[in-house]
Amino acid sequence: MPRPSSHADSVLTIDLGAVVANYRALRDRLSGAECAAVVKADAYGLGAARVAPELASAGCRTYFVATLDEGIVLRSIFDGLQPAGEAQLFVLNGANPGTEEEFYEHRLIPVLNSEPQVDAWATVARRRGAPSAAALHLDTGMARLGLSPSEADALASEPDRLAAIDLVLVMSHLACADQPDHAMNRQQLTRFRRLRDAWPSTPASLVNSSGIFLGGDYLFDMGRAGVALYGINPQPDQTNSMAQVIHIKGKIIQVRDVDSPMTVGYGATHPVARPGRIATVPVGYADGWPRALSNRGFAYVGDIRVPLVGRVSMDLITLDVTDVPPHLVQPGCEVELLGGHAAIDEVAKVADTIAYELLTRLGQRYERVYVGISA
Amino acid sequence: MPRPSSHADSVLTIDLGAVVANYRALRDRLSGAECAAVVKADAYGLGAARVAPELASAGCRTYFVATLDEGIVLRSIFDGLQPAGEAQLFVLNGANPGTEEEFYEHRLIPVLNSEPQVDAWATVARRRGAPSAAALHLDTGMARLGLSPSEADALASEPDRLAAIDLVLVMSHLACADQPDHAMNRQQLTRFRRLRDAWPSTPASLVNSSGIFLGGDYLFDMGRAGVALYGINPQPDQTNSMAQVIHIKGKIIQVRDVDSPMTVGYGATHPVARPGRIATVPVGYADGWPRALSNRGFAYVGDIRVPLVGRVSMDLITLDVTDVPPHLVQPGCEVELLGGHAAIDEVAKVADTIAYELLTRLGQRYERVYVGISA
Repeated sequence: MPRPSSHADSVLTIDLGAVVANYRALRDRLSGAECAAVVKADAYGLGAARVAPELASAGCRTYFVATLDEGIVLRSIFDGLQPAGEAQLFVLNGANPGTEEEFYEHRLIPVLNSEPQVDAWATVARRRGAPSAAALHLDTGMARLGLSPSEADALASEPDRLAAIDLVLVMSHLACADQPDHAMNRQQLTRFRRLRDAWPSTPASLVNSSGIFLGGDYLFDMGRAGVALYGINPQPDQTNSMAQVIHIKGKIIQVRDVDSPMTVGYGATHPVARPGRIATVPVGYADGWPRALSNRGFAYVGDIRVPLVGRVSMDLITLDVTDVPPHLVQPGCEVELLGGHAAIDEVAKVADTIAYELLTRLGQRYERVYVGISA
Repeated sequence: MPRPSSHADSVLTIDLGAVVANYRALRDRLSGAECAAVVKADAYGLGAARVAPELASAGCRTYFVATLDEGIVLRSIFDGLQPAGEAQLFVLNGANPGTEEEFYEHRLIPVLNSEPQVDAWATVARRRGAPSAAALHLDTGMARLGLSPSEADALASEPDRLAAIDLVLVMSHLACADQPDHAMNRQQLTRFRRLRDAWPSTPASLVNSSGIFLGGDYLFDMGRAGVALYGINPQPDQTNSMAQVIHIKGKIIQVRDVDSPMTVGYGATHPVARPGRIATVPVGYADGWPRALSNRGFAYVGDIRVPLVGRVSMDLITLDVTDVPPHLVQPGCEVELLGGHAAIDEVAKVADTIAYELLTRLGQRYERVYVGISA
């Protein structure tokens, strides 16, 4: 649905200044290695068209998206910027056979993940008669994308296969970077070091947001900052050092007096135990407010934490506001769902997931307000 | 992000013919009561701009959305249709103070949920000097939206408060309609009957999709068909009688040989027990594929069910395809994620949720293909 000028009673505020502050903080941790930005999934749901230009103003020159479609959109965003600076755009899923010409047309660099992708890109490059930029993904422990160690060894032993390719980056991806003591980190580092030695003059990249905090040997020539840009804690075992980027507030549309033996919501799962008041707020699972928060979630009215009672509906939640002074919980009053007191990482944990998922599923019905925009 | 012409390796097919078939089946069950269509949340994520015109062709004249913004968009959709038929559009969240003029401008009918909404709408109607259409929501057991029984009784005893309002519908909403034996159903019916007697000549509506299957006394003058239109089972204790509306297929982008002691994916949660193969498909939680399906989900390759192993990533899932003949699981081969063998209600159950949530969170990166379009 196209979005009309908003009358939404729920507001998603996105602080682009905080995104830039997080970018700078991550760049500082990279000790001179380049800080690339991961803006896949429409900048984790926050709007690549708004986020990427701010990052460009802050000096970011390299971006990662997941798919060709995302790359095409991102290139058009950069081509529309004044002054236009040439950004380096990588497509993590690589070039599927038959899509190579689109990569050239939109100046996109595929991350080659498999032998078929490598060989197809090389074939097209030879046909064009000019070296074609690509990154090479070496799998060191995800078993998801990237050449296996034996495939990488085979490729390294046959340099002709890469002769037509301008290899601009060799990369891998950590599986457990958010657990700094996990043995996988060191294993993946050791494997990556050995494998990338086949291309010693090519810049290398191993770390994502959490990996940047592993520091030292892990950093190589480039870090790929993603979720931490958007304010999510890259170090789950420590206090979040990132600036908060998103806030969600909803306006109460109705307040209901309740008393036992009533129940609240679908399935009659919340029995009312005492005389009280229920406030209904127009945010539901169609807005990305997880149904897993049914009878477990919370919100804030000022400093007062109020429980989400009953099931999360498609378009609505119900909060027990019995203990809040009535003048603060009238129709039209705001409650805070995310940001401020309601840390996204905590909300996600209560919903049995991670903030990454919560962020990327926030829906289209919020009024989206961007603040902290650079001059 | 604006959507370019798609190169997506994941395809969401939406069968509008099945939506229409479901509409007709639900209408037949309503025994002459009107069958309204609920198209809130962008027709539960499937695209109101495509769904609503098909329903209109099938004879649907009344629609429900959740918010004013959705109503404005839906009115513009209907105004653009040839031949333009006047559809009756209800906004379930009602008219918040200050938005009344928008309702008039776009010919939207608010569902008045609370005394403040009733009194504000009446005030505006009196000022305009012409009766203004509205529905009245009487809460019979949700404690979410709608007048409490005592508020409804008070309103009934003061007919002047509604004098300026053209009351076109009195409605309520069932909390447990998907559990036909739940005592709440009969309680809500009894309450609704008593309350609506104050407005005996006004059409009444109590049932949603599941409620339509309660039949008989529950049907009144109108049913509000929602989730069942989109193929979700309105009778969870029985075989689904609705036509399947959506299918999701993803193309394998990579196949990896694996062996113990490797692990797959983030957190190294899936240990590989034997030599095998992992297929990576570009659908992840940013596409609405729930992270709760990590190590629990499944897909189909032809008739063969394959387990989702490791965690669901933002943009990718990994499937154990060891037991599938290799020629069926090459890069470019399709796997079925939803529809056909993979019933949406089953996938949702494995993810500890309901199909409603799965449907409304499907993301924007699929290539969306509409089939079954009327001539």
